[in-house]
Amino acid sequence: MPLAGEDRVKLQSLQSFVAGELAAFEREYESLLTGELDLLQEICGHLRLGKSKRFRPTLLLVTSKNGGEMHEDAAFAAACVELVHTATLVHDDFIDEAETRRRLPTVNVKWGPSAALIMGDFLYTKVFSLMTDRGMDEAMRIIASTTFRMSVAEMMQLERRGEVDLPEDDYFTIISEKTAVLIAASCEIGALLHPKLRRHHAELSAFGHDLGMAFQITDDIFDYRGDARRLGKPVGADWKEGRITLPFIAAWRNAPEETRKRLREAMGPKAGDPAAWEEVREMVQNYGGLEYSQEMASHFGERAKENLLTLAAHPQAGILSDAVDYVLRRLD
Amino acid sequence: MPLAGEDRVKLQSLQSFVAGELAAFEREYESLLTGELDLLQEICGHLRLGKSKRFRPTLLLVTSKNGGEMHEDAAFAAACVELVHTATLVHDDFIDEAETRRRLPTVNVKWGPSAALIMGDFLYTKVFSLMTDRGMDEAMRIIASTTFRMSVAEMMQLERRGEVDLPEDDYFTIISEKTAVLIAASCEIGALLHPKLRRHHAELSAFGHDLGMAFQITDDIFDYRGDARRLGKPVGADWKEGRITLPFIAAWRNAPEETRKRLREAMGPKAGDPAAWEEVREMVQNYGGLEYSQEMASHFGERAKENLLTLAAHPQAGILSDAVDYVLRRLD
Repeated sequence: MPLAGEDRVKLQSLQSFVAGELAAFEREYESLLTGELDLLQEICGHLRLGKSKRFRPTLLLVTSKNGGEMHEDAAFAAACVELVHTATLVHDDFIDEAETRRRLPTVNVKWGPSAALIMGDFLYTKVFSLMTDRGMDEAMRIIASTTFRMSVAEMMQLERRGEVDLPEDDYFTIISEKTAVLIAASCEIGALLHPKLRRHHAELSAFGHDLGMAFQITDDIFDYRGDARRLGKPVGADWKEGRITLPFIAAWRNAPEETRKRLREAMGPKAGDPAAWEEVREMVQNYGGLEYSQEMASHFGERAKENLLTLAAHPQAGILSDAVDYVLRRLD
Repeated sequence: MPLAGEDRVKLQSLQSFVAGELAAFEREYESLLTGELDLLQEICGHLRLGKSKRFRPTLLLVTSKNGGEMHEDAAFAAACVELVHTATLVHDDFIDEAETRRRLPTVNVKWGPSAALIMGDFLYTKVFSLMTDRGMDEAMRIIASTTFRMSVAEMMQLERRGEVDLPEDDYFTIISEKTAVLIAASCEIGALLHPKLRRHHAELSAFGHDLGMAFQITDDIFDYRGDARRLGKPVGADWKEGRITLPFIAAWRNAPEETRKRLREAMGPKAGDPAAWEEVREMVQNYGGLEYSQEMASHFGERAKENLLTLAAHPQAGILSDAVDYVLRRLD
C-alpha cells in the first residue's frame, strides 16, 4: 500500500511539529476517557483501543503551539475535542447500525443500543462538565454551539436519507454542520490559546471549516473508490446506509436519463439498496462523480489555504498548509 | 379520581405563587422547543403536546421569585431545565422501549430509534449552546455537572438491570443521580437568581435533592400501587423493564426464604419477567414494601424541610414546604 505509506509520512510530518504536545494529549485523553462504573470502564477501555489518527487534536495543538511553551489548557482542550469526536462516532454507529469501527466491534454491537446511547450522552456531558469546571468558558461556548450544529446535521441526514435527488447545496450543508464545524472548532480553540494567533481566531476557524469540507469530501470519495482494508470499514457503506454523497450527486446529474431510469428501477424508490451497489458504483465512476468531487475537495483545500495568508509570519502557516496537502494527497 | 383532584389543588396552590412566571416560562419553552428542519419541528411539536406538571420549572421560579420582580433569566433558565428533563425522557423511553409517554406515542415509537437518539442530543446541546450564548456560566456549570451525573446513573441503571438483590444503597445512588440532581439543580439555579437567597444556594440545592429523593420514591411506589390511568403509563413498568426499586427491595428483604425461592423460580435468573408480575406485586404488598418506601419518602421529605429552616424569613420557606407536602400527599 504505497499510498497509505505516503499518507502516514505526511501526517507524521505534521504531527512531528507537536510531538511533545501529542504525548501530553494522549495522557490527558486516556485519563479522561474513563468512568467510575465497571460498565463505563469496560466501554471506555474498548474505545481507547480504537485509535483514531488524532487529526482534530493535532490541529488544535498546532494552532495553539507558541514556541517551546505549551499552554496549560492545550492538551486538555485537545482531549475534549477528541472526546466529542468519539461521542459522535458512538452515536453515528448506532444510527448506521455499523458493526465495526477501526476494526473493532462498535459499542452498539458489543454492548447494545442502550449502552451506545448512554455512552454518547456520558461523553458529551463529561466534556461539558469538565470544561465548565475548568472555567474554559470561551472554548465551552464553541464546543456547545458546535455539538448543537452537529446534532441538527445528524437529524438532517436522517431526514434526507435515501433521497437520490439530494441537491448539492444540501449535501454541503450536511457536511459543513456534521464534520467541518468540529474541525473548525479545533483550530479556533487552539488559536484562542495562543497569545498572538488569538486575534486570528476567525481566520483559523474558517481555515478549519474549509479543511473539514475537503476532509469529508475525500472521505466520501473513498467510500466509492477506496479499498476496505485501508478504510477500516467496508466500501459502499454510505450508499448502503442511504447517505447520498457528492460522488453520487455529481454523477447522477451527468448520467443520461436512461441510466438514471434503469438505476431507479434497480433500487426502488429510495437509495440504499445493497443489490444496486455495483451499478451505482459504476455510474459514479463512469459519469465523473469522482473527478468532480476531487475538484471540489481541491477547491475547499485552496480556500482553506487562503485563510492562512494573514498568518504568514507564523510557523503555523506552513504546517497548516501541509495539513491541507495531507487531506488532498489522500486521494493521489 | 378524588386523589388526583386533591393533587391538582396542591400543585396549583404552589403554582399560583408563580402564575405570571409560569406563563412567561411557557412562552419561553414553546419558543425554544423548536428546530429549523421539518423533522425537528414535527418532533418538537409532538413533545410540546405531552405537557408535564412543570414541577422543575415551578421550583426554579419559586426559588428565584423576589417580590413582584422577575429575574430576566428566570423564565429562560426554567425552560432550559425543562428541556433537559424532556431530553432525558426521550432517551429513557428509547432505553425502556416505552410505547407511550403522557398518553402519546414516544418519539422512539413514532419516528424510530435514530430520531430518538438525535432528538435527545439536539435538546441537550441546544440547552448548552443557549446557556453559554447567554453567558449564564454559573447555571451552565450546574447543568453540565447535573447532566453528566444523570448519564452515569443511566449507565448504572442499565448495568444493574434485573439484579434482584440490588442493595438499597445502590438504589438510593441511582435515584439520587438520575432524578434528585435535576430537582436540586432547579432549586439551586433559582436561588442563584435571587439577590437574597443566593447565599442560601447550597441549602436550596440540598432541599431540592431531598425533595427529589422523596419524589422518585413516591413514583416508584405508584408503579406498584397506582392505577394506570392516573399514572399515564402502565403499572408494573419498572418491574417489566428490570428496574428494581425500593418497594421490591424492602419486601424482598422481609419475605420468607420460601417466597423468595418460589419467586426466583417463577422469574428465572433475572428480574423483569412479565409473567411473574402479579406474584411480585403481591409480595411487595404482603411484605411491607409499600410501607417501608412510604417511610423513606417521608424521611427525605422531613430532611428536605430541615433545609428550609434558615430561610424562615422568606415566603419561599412556606411554599417549598408545601412542595414537600404535595410530593408526599400524592401517596394519600
